[in-house]
Amino acid sequence: MTTKKLGNQTAVFATPPSFAGHANVAGKKEGEGPLAASFDYIDRDDSFGEASWEKSESAMQKRALAMALDKAGQPASRLDWLFAGDLLNQCIGSSYAAREQNIPFFGLYGACSTMGEGLVLASMLLDGGFGEWAGVVVSSHFCSAERQYRTPLEYGGQRTPTAQWTVTAAGAAILAREGPGPYLTHATVGKIVDRGIKDANNMGAAMAPAAYSTISAHFQDTGRGPDFYDLIVTGDLGTLGSELLVELLNQDGIQLNNHADCGAMMFDIENQDVHCGGSGCGCCASVLTGYLLNGMRAGQWKNILFCPTGALHSPTASFQGESIPGICHAVAISAEK
Amino acid sequence: MTTKKLGNQTAVFATPPSFAGHANVAGKKEGEGPLAASFDYIDRDDSFGEASWEKSESAMQKRALAMALDKAGQPASRLDWLFAGDLLNQCIGSSYAAREQNIPFFGLYGACSTMGEGLVLASMLLDGGFGEWAGVVVSSHFCSAERQYRTPLEYGGQRTPTAQWTVTAAGAAILAREGPGPYLTHATVGKIVDRGIKDANNMGAAMAPAAYSTISAHFQDTGRGPDFYDLIVTGDLGTLGSELLVELLNQDGIQLNNHADCGAMMFDIENQDVHCGGSGCGCCASVLTGYLLNGMRAGQWKNILFCPTGALHSPTASFQGESIPGICHAVAISAEK
Repeated sequence: MTTKKLGNQTAVFATPPSFAGHANVAGKKEGEGPLAASFDYIDRDDSFGEASWEKSESAMQKRALAMALDKAGQPASRLDWLFAGDLLNQCIGSSYAAREQNIPFFGLYGACSTMGEGLVLASMLLDGGFGEWAGVVVSSHFCSAERQYRTPLEYGGQRTPTAQWTVTAAGAAILAREGPGPYLTHATVGKIVDRGIKDANNMGAAMAPAAYSTISAHFQDTGRGPDFYDLIVTGDLGTLGSELLVELLNQDGIQLNNHADCGAMMFDIENQDVHCGGSGCGCCASVLTGYLLNGMRAGQWKNILFCPTGALHSPTASFQGESIPGICHAVAISAEK
Repeated sequence: MTTKKLGNQTAVFATPPSFAGHANVAGKKEGEGPLAASFDYIDRDDSFGEASWEKSESAMQKRALAMALDKAGQPASRLDWLFAGDLLNQCIGSSYAAREQNIPFFGLYGACSTMGEGLVLASMLLDGGFGEWAGVVVSSHFCSAERQYRTPLEYGGQRTPTAQWTVTAAGAAILAREGPGPYLTHATVGKIVDRGIKDANNMGAAMAPAAYSTISAHFQDTGRGPDFYDLIVTGDLGTLGSELLVELLNQDGIQLNNHADCGAMMFDIENQDVHCGGSGCGCCASVLTGYLLNGMRAGQWKNILFCPTGALHSPTASFQGESIPGICHAVAISAEK
């Protein structure tokens, strides 16, 4: 067999998997933002009909997955594998959503990079000859994240200028071994990068070096430059982290003129009081499964490099004085094989 | 390409990956148990030289991985991919261990089934043509788990008769696309099963139905019966969960005469005050990477079905009245291809 690996970090698919269906759900604040039209469902009060925020998150995953399957025209029983993840302790948003699905299940923890991690693994399995259909679903919820990572909402804690706003959203993608595209052609798997940032309210800065590492590796492994892509989209660096990424690549002589960041796109930064932008697994997942893939289908872009970023720390690690390790996985999506 | 999937849940490998190296580390209590001779390193005070239990867990993963690589005769830079997971919130045991490794990284959350999940995915990637070498490392630590899941150690809470003891151990396995074995030939990926058990101090009962589901699926998908295997080893059902598994299979007319459970094997149940036995990601991981694989290399067993089990709940889910979803992944290991 010829190798399906380029360089040190990149998988190249012999039979690029096709996005057969994709869908998302979002919360009220997200639904008042600039991407409102790209959400398949917007909840009125972020509860998604459930009695706790954690149960809301499971409900979000279930709804996003069901809609993505519906768009793919497939029943859940068609899925060979389901990958899922979220930000909650022990990833209960995913486990409790998946327990009713009856699908062979892989739980992931990649923080806000989880949609990328899931797409990479699902593609590798399908291209490796293991089954025909795979699903990936991830979520985050502002209210469950705030009380777990920071303070209960009722406390009303002030936010620092570099803080980001955890997005209430879920995104689901159905990949098929055969199909009309868009196609997932390459995946550059991230290494963990930690440049010593300790401020848990400045995750953009903590994750930018990981995005820089993976995007650089992608260019090196594939021989492509930034101009190959119509759009290079990071996950949730936010406005400050995005500036840092552009600067880091600039130092290597690489101009990133076609960069966008899902965290910066999600909200009207000036008017929605989100400081540096959105974050959370659901942020880039809902942007990919709506705005980006819809745009590709409409012919707006032909080649996108989708680069979800994650901060792999925890409150306990921060309390113990640790810095914040970051990771980024990059996935090349093309309208043509 | 011919399909590499049998039935609904089972992957069959065209080029079965070989265990090129495997190693484990264990804590003091584990080192006083019946498997003491199978541990590569036993720590004197469970700190592994670190100032917090969470940092101890990262140190355990680093040490187990380094020893496994050493036994495989390979530098860390040879690994195409690293899979890791643990029980801590946001899986910090793994992230902080892996941030120094410079290896493309996949974070997993499968609770105590994580070694199984990692072996399945690593094998699928290698057999799919993506690289030549992959590592899997997982851990658990009694002290970090107690304070996160139950009560701080200083509280001295009483344990119920059905409780299990989180094992302080880490296990690492290095898989190679080519090698002399033992080989990983089949993998049956688990579905989430929840039979309504709500007692977080009776995880064996919560996980037994998942083990039953996956082992039954393995027999159905492969056409094998229990007699094909010299040993069918579950992860950490403990003594009570093991009885339930045997009974569930019995109801289908399947006699499980060659069953063992890593949780029941880890300690001297009568004399080490562990009630129903050991649990935790590190439990079955350290038994596999020591006692089981060493025994296969010594010719003690030719075919083993290794079935790690996990409980996918959290304290928050329990506080909200939720039952405990379980999962089990089964991996067939053979001395010959």
